Amino acid sequence: MESVFAGTLARGAAASEVTGAAWLAAMLDAEAGLAAAHAALGLVPGDAAAAIAAACRPERFDAHALGEAAGLSGNPVVPLVKALRELVPAEHRGQVHLGATSQDILDTAAMLVAGRALVPLTADLDAAADACAALAVRHRDTVLPGRTLLQQAVPTTFGLKAAGWLTALTAARDRLRALRRPVQYGGAAGTLSALGDRGHEVVAAFATELGLDEPLVPWHTDRTPVAGLACALGIAAGVLAKIATDVKLLAQTEVGEAAEPSAPGRGGSSAMPHKRNPVGAISVLACAQRVPGLVGAVLAGMAQEHERAAGAWQAEQETLSDLLRLTGSAASWAREILEGLSVDEARMRANLAATGGLPMAESVVARLGGGPRARALVDAACARAVAEGRPLGEVLAADADVRLTPAEIGAALDPAGYLGSAGAFVDRALARRDTRENR
Amino acid sequence: MESVFAGTLARGAAASEVTGAAWLAAMLDAEAGLAAAHAALGLVPGDAAAAIAAACRPERFDAHALGEAAGLSGNPVVPLVKALRELVPAEHRGQVHLGATSQDILDTAAMLVAGRALVPLTADLDAAADACAALAVRHRDTVLPGRTLLQQAVPTTFGLKAAGWLTALTAARDRLRALRRPVQYGGAAGTLSALGDRGHEVVAAFATELGLDEPLVPWHTDRTPVAGLACALGIAAGVLAKIATDVKLLAQTEVGEAAEPSAPGRGGSSAMPHKRNPVGAISVLACAQRVPGLVGAVLAGMAQEHERAAGAWQAEQETLSDLLRLTGSAASWAREILEGLSVDEARMRANLAATGGLPMAESVVARLGGGPRARALVDAACARAVAEGRPLGEVLAADADVRLTPAEIGAALDPAGYLGSAGAFVDRALARRDTRENR
Amino acid sequence: MESVFAGTLARGAAASEVTGAAWLAAMLDAEAGLAAAHAALGLVPGDAAAAIAAACRPERFDAHALGEAAGLSGNPVVPLVKALRELVPAEHRGQVHLGATSQDILDTAAMLVAGRALVPLTADLDAAADACAALAVRHRDTVLPGRTLLQQAVPTTFGLKAAGWLTALTAARDRLRALRRPVQYGGAAGTLSALGDRGHEVVAAFATELGLDEPLVPWHTDRTPVAGLACALGIAAGVLAKIATDVKLLAQTEVGEAAEPSAPGRGGSSAMPHKRNPVGAISVLACAQRVPGLVGAVLAGMAQEHERAAGAWQAEQETLSDLLRLTGSAASWAREILEGLSVDEARMRANLAATGGLPMAESVVARLGGGPRARALVDAACARAVAEGRPLGEVLAADADVRLTPAEIGAALDPAGYLGSAGAFVDRALARRDTRENR
Amino acid sequence: MESVFAGTLARGAAASEVTGAAWLAAMLDAEAGLAAAHAALGLVPGDAAAAIAAACRPERFDAHALGEAAGLSGNPVVPLVKALRELVPAEHRGQVHLGATSQDILDTAAMLVAGRALVPLTADLDAAADACAALAVRHRDTVLPGRTLLQQAVPTTFGLKAAGWLTALTAARDRLRALRRPVQYGGAAGTLSALGDRGHEVVAAFATELGLDEPLVPWHTDRTPVAGLACALGIAAGVLAKIATDVKLLAQTEVGEAAEPSAPGRGGSSAMPHKRNPVGAISVLACAQRVPGLVGAVLAGMAQEHERAAGAWQAEQETLSDLLRLTGSAASWAREILEGLSVDEARMRANLAATGGLPMAESVVARLGGGPRARALVDAACARAVAEGRPLGEVLAADADVRLTPAEIGAALDPAGYLGSAGAFVDRALARRDTRENR
Repeated sequence: MESVFAGTLARGAAASEVTGAAWLAAMLDAEAGLAAAHAALGLVPGDAAAAIAAACRPERFDAHALGEAAGLSGNPVVPLVKALRELVPAEHRGQVHLGATSQDILDTAAMLVAGRALVPLTADLDAAADACAALAVRHRDTVLPGRTLLQQAVPTTFGLKAAGWLTALTAARDRLRALRRPVQYGGAAGTLSALGDRGHEVVAAFATELGLDEPLVPWHTDRTPVAGLACALGIAAGVLAKIATDVKLLAQTEVGEAAEPSAPGRGGSSAMPHKRNPVGAISVLACAQRVPGLVGAVLAGMAQEHERAAGAWQAEQETLSDLLRLTGSAASWAREILEGLSVDEARMRANLAATGGLPMAESVVARLGGGPRARALVDAACARAVAEGRPLGEVLAADADVRLTPAEIGAALDPAGYLGSAGAFVDRALARRDTRENR
Repeated sequence: MESVFAGTLARGAAASEVTGAAWLAAMLDAEAGLAAAHAALGLVPGDAAAAIAAACRPERFDAHALGEAAGLSGNPVVPLVKALRELVPAEHRGQVHLGATSQDILDTAAMLVAGRALVPLTADLDAAADACAALAVRHRDTVLPGRTLLQQAVPTTFGLKAAGWLTALTAARDRLRALRRPVQYGGAAGTLSALGDRGHEVVAAFATELGLDEPLVPWHTDRTPVAGLACALGIAAGVLAKIATDVKLLAQTEVGEAAEPSAPGRGGSSAMPHKRNPVGAISVLACAQRVPGLVGAVLAGMAQEHERAAGAWQAEQETLSDLLRLTGSAASWAREILEGLSVDEARMRANLAATGGLPMAESVVARLGGGPRARALVDAACARAVAEGRPLGEVLAADADVRLTPAEIGAALDPAGYLGSAGAFVDRALARRDTRENR
Repeated sequence: MESVFAGTLARGAAASEVTGAAWLAAMLDAEAGLAAAHAALGLVPGDAAAAIAAACRPERFDAHALGEAAGLSGNPVVPLVKALRELVPAEHRGQVHLGATSQDILDTAAMLVAGRALVPLTADLDAAADACAALAVRHRDTVLPGRTLLQQAVPTTFGLKAAGWLTALTAARDRLRALRRPVQYGGAAGTLSALGDRGHEVVAAFATELGLDEPLVPWHTDRTPVAGLACALGIAAGVLAKIATDVKLLAQTEVGEAAEPSAPGRGGSSAMPHKRNPVGAISVLACAQRVPGLVGAVLAGMAQEHERAAGAWQAEQETLSDLLRLTGSAASWAREILEGLSVDEARMRANLAATGGLPMAESVVARLGGGPRARALVDAACARAVAEGRPLGEVLAADADVRLTPAEIGAALDPAGYLGSAGAFVDRALARRDTRENR
Repeated sequence: MESVFAGTLARGAAASEVTGAAWLAAMLDAEAGLAAAHAALGLVPGDAAAAIAAACRPERFDAHALGEAAGLSGNPVVPLVKALRELVPAEHRGQVHLGATSQDILDTAAMLVAGRALVPLTADLDAAADACAALAVRHRDTVLPGRTLLQQAVPTTFGLKAAGWLTALTAARDRLRALRRPVQYGGAAGTLSALGDRGHEVVAAFATELGLDEPLVPWHTDRTPVAGLACALGIAAGVLAKIATDVKLLAQTEVGEAAEPSAPGRGGSSAMPHKRNPVGAISVLACAQRVPGLVGAVLAGMAQEHERAAGAWQAEQETLSDLLRLTGSAASWAREILEGLSVDEARMRANLAATGGLPMAESVVARLGGGPRARALVDAACARAVAEGRPLGEVLAADADVRLTPAEIGAALDPAGYLGSAGAFVDRALARRDTRENR
């Protein structure tokens, strides 16, 4: 649909690589590439390939009409080949779609579409990761409350949070870039029988023509390539959703530690003029919400019958388009958020202070030498602090059994002094990023 | 996308009720209906409502531009209201969208869109059920092999098969028609605070204006209505997939008991001129393959935060559109298949005969009086028949321990004589259909 | 598995109704009920039914061994019937499982298992709804920030929040209680051929014996009853997840408006002695997280072949058990949370105050008479308040263009004066609850 | 549950690696391994590690009681550590679980559980692939109908079918073996603050102790490792489902080209003594049916909050167990089927012959030199053959326009002469398998 929701769910350049026009272009590229492969092996004359390539121009086809006609055969390749043959000189018509079945063209087109959509998508993941790296550098030692089960735990650093995002984003991008995207060429039943015994030689040439991978055997009903793609997109969307979850929680009115970039009209509400909504994080989450079910549909569709599936294959193309569009939109939004994220260090300190030192109890236990007796002492002090609404430091100072000086208590309760390996972890993540990106 | 797969995945009239244009029209209907409700209660002057209604004409808005702008606020209502106010005389601008939040309009629009798409969708389910009823009447006593785990079991009738389809289709349609589709009206946080203490009175008037249901309380983050709709569509798609599964299996070359209607170009293959593919069943299955994951996305999205969700709600509209379009397409295809289904009774008889009476073993056991001894005798005869490749009747006739006359053996092995309550079940299903449809 | 996660994922009594032992008991009840139905119609002698009933005692069967043996035939009924026949006097063995197929017994058992698990599950939903009603009464006028997209919006009441939970819980319970749970009885291929022409009469008697519904026709491959059950459980889990989401967000350290009931050891952390985790809300969410995918599996499995499915049916029983156990556990946790929920009204007021009146901007616009000029004035005041970090009231008072007295400004900024229909909505929800529960 | 469905859904050794007992053992291994890592770095004395290791014996713990107690904290590690400390001499109690949080132990245990379950699971995939390789060798040139959309298409070979299975199985196994399975160690908020600045050094030692991978940073809320595992299992299950789909279709009564291995009691029916059901294929499909929804649940759960998730993490362990058990069961069943599969070459030839040469139309077109005229001639001949119920060869021979000798017609219609690159593809798949397995 020409969506009224496109701004949210179809941001970024991946969306334009999965339109009907993009599929049409990819199918034509597949037909032209196949003819070129035949010519390269001497199976058709060079001028046949040239004539076919000349006819394979999207503007000469009516995508809407092809979509309508697709219903008659269950896929758009049948009417496409018919229309293509009419555009080719009579003497070369027999060389169009030579030895191929509809699925050869549509699966190859799917791999082209995916490859083209993955270019901006992985670029956005990459830029988002760069933004995380910059945040990790800048906030390597910025202290904020660690939060587990949405309760304040011991302190951590915003740098470590960003380093975690960075690591996950980089892995997601690497997984997408490492995917194999094979051509499909097997003919009616996977044997390429129409080409005598030379069919399998064409496969490699076809792959070379299109910059795709060469499969070992036709994969008409082995949907591993599509499933691998769907899963890698699912994981990328999950990583983006984790980041967006953190941002939306940090941006809560009562937390206020981070804010999305502002722009005129961005994040406004139709009813509340004062609001500044984390619209980027929300958009990432809206996109990502739809993804797991789509991945499930691809996986459930792997049980394909014999040499060509009766339904599950025909369901794949639109699902794949949605996965690329939605994950691409989420990546584009995440990039925008992360490149412009405001971090409020003062609010982080204030939120840490608001709990009166309770999350530092573990640090006091350690300062007291650890062990059950130290823990019992601190547990009692914490209970008293909560019951009486007093800061933990005050309670500890007043407790004769706690043999620590005020300075020692202060040090034990200082979040910046209880960050363990946070800095080391940040450095590791940044070092790995540098190594990988510079190789 | 302007899909090149529309013929398969967007058949039928439901698809045109979930386009961007359809959502735009529904949002405008919601705005106009709200103003009319305000006017009905005297909260705004009648000419304000009239002016707003006059401006709520889809052709005056640019759906594409709204889609782009939706990104800034996470939904298209913010730019829509802005554009709408510009089309209304200055004195009535403040009465546009009065007391409402974006979600009020979009949720109400969703219920309108669903209601409009359900009209052709349930009509197609109904027509498909009628076709099943006709098949059940015509083939009440047409015998074919019952098949369990894809192996021939005892015989059944094609009428009983059709009666099962009929019963499931009727239930699916009833479930869709019984759904409550409430308006949404709660304002910024569900309190309708902008309307003083009269807001809740508007809800009923709003529902009446639009022919929707009145909710008890605002349901901004109680997504039961959307989830109920998604589930009912999921069940309908499942019922259609069951029918299509049977049709594709009956249409197998080696089974050949049913064939889809033929038409020029329908079911053709780009590589094999002789083939007649069950393209309707395949299309139903392609549509249905996508549905369960979409239902799962709606259910997973029910965990919505506080008074308006940060992501899960924004994911719903497109998912709902897909569910309506795909289930609608499946219903349209199923109707076409069932209205034109060819049934090959001769092939059914031949397939029954091909197993040499083995599936009738149970009938012979019964004829022998049942019990372990009878079963042991028949088991032995079956084993011999399989081992020697002979018909069971011949083996039984030659077995001195089997004290049945040739006529008795023939009767025991006659599929038509071993149909139990098949006819009675068909009659029950038809009687129920008649009762319901005539009330 | 004897799970080490049971405390979280298998709380409540529903879990014990879906164990292997529970399924065994239900299958035996189905066999005994079937024999009783046959006896009621005079198809077997009364003492056969009595002898079969006497043998159908779970303690006489080895569930583990049945589970192992189930692999040979794809379901546990085949070995169960074998074992049952050995426990019945020789003269009645032929009357065990008369005319039935394995699926008749297992589907009927599934409906019994579901019915038994739904008793405590719906009781927990009901008690949770009662707790919500009590909260709605007690906090009808307790003001807290409405929150949309996790940002403070205009104020609402905790009573309205609880009324929303109440409405959703009641609907979910009603949906579960309204489900049809039919017996299954069709024999090998749905015709009940082994019973001559009287099979269909047995169906009603069988249903009466077991307190289940009578189906119109056998539903071996029309999985509507199971799908309806799965969907209703999915919706119930979604409703519970919404409540748990609110509780976990309200319980955040920085929000602190609600807290779960405390008990020794409850909500503790292995590393942080001071923490009190919202372990109930987390457990609800953990259970609910698993549910949508399970519903999707049931829906995807509806495409069942011919008269008995080759795989999809065999996948259902465990999925259904998981759905009942997880939704049951979520319901039990939700009941515990809601019955003991602490509400911190002071913290709610403090959180409202912390935003310096900004969420009340809409109220000021209304007080100024509404319209674009009023809105522009207030927008400017809000912007100044944010930029200068001052309360909105102070900024408004200092603004010569804002012609409101201090008292008027105070009234406009008082959350308690801007609750619209919140109270009316609460009253509607409570009135409906009373009506329904007392009928 | 002690399942009565275990024979179907919990076949194979993976199932016993995901029980409550297996999780308990893995958690204890994690605690012991952590102590050993501390000792290796000199952070605790060697005898502390030894004492802890000595206490970490599963038989000293009550898995059931831990499961119950897990409810209080949302995971079983809290009560486990409490019980473990009681088993350790008082002086070493403080060194138990040093610096760790519950999630450190449970995530590490998850990776151990997965690793242990993957050993038999990948061994079964491997053996299944070996069986496919043997089938591909034996049936390299065995001709059967290629089937697309469940209609007979041009012929293919059973060897090519098996080669496709082989390729997919090998890829699925490789993907599972290549997974990274990292230890988890981050302490309360990922900083390992309790260990001063040496925490990150422990991570590597911990990984070495347990034979797991070292993560770059703690991955408490970056669920990439679990998601990658879930996806790889989902793809493996999909590959197994494809094979089982082919087997169940080939085993249909009306097709009869393959049969599962027989054994006493295997594939029996409670109602039909003669049946031999493809119970292995059905079991694979039953297991696989449940998998996509479980993968979806893991992916949807990636949106985890801050430093520890409130619900989504707690849902993972059981989902992962189910994924390992079900995919493991499917692999075990598939191995059994493939190692004992009967192939009926005569039936394949008979099924090919039954279509009277129609699927060979493409071959005749090629023999006639291709091009539109040849195709038109053959299309007309096919139409006549269908209309008159005559073999295509007879129609062609009688057609004066078809200038082919009877021998040429015979050759064109011989399936064995129209196999294209089938043999070459088989050889490629076998060569790749040899290369990989011998390296």
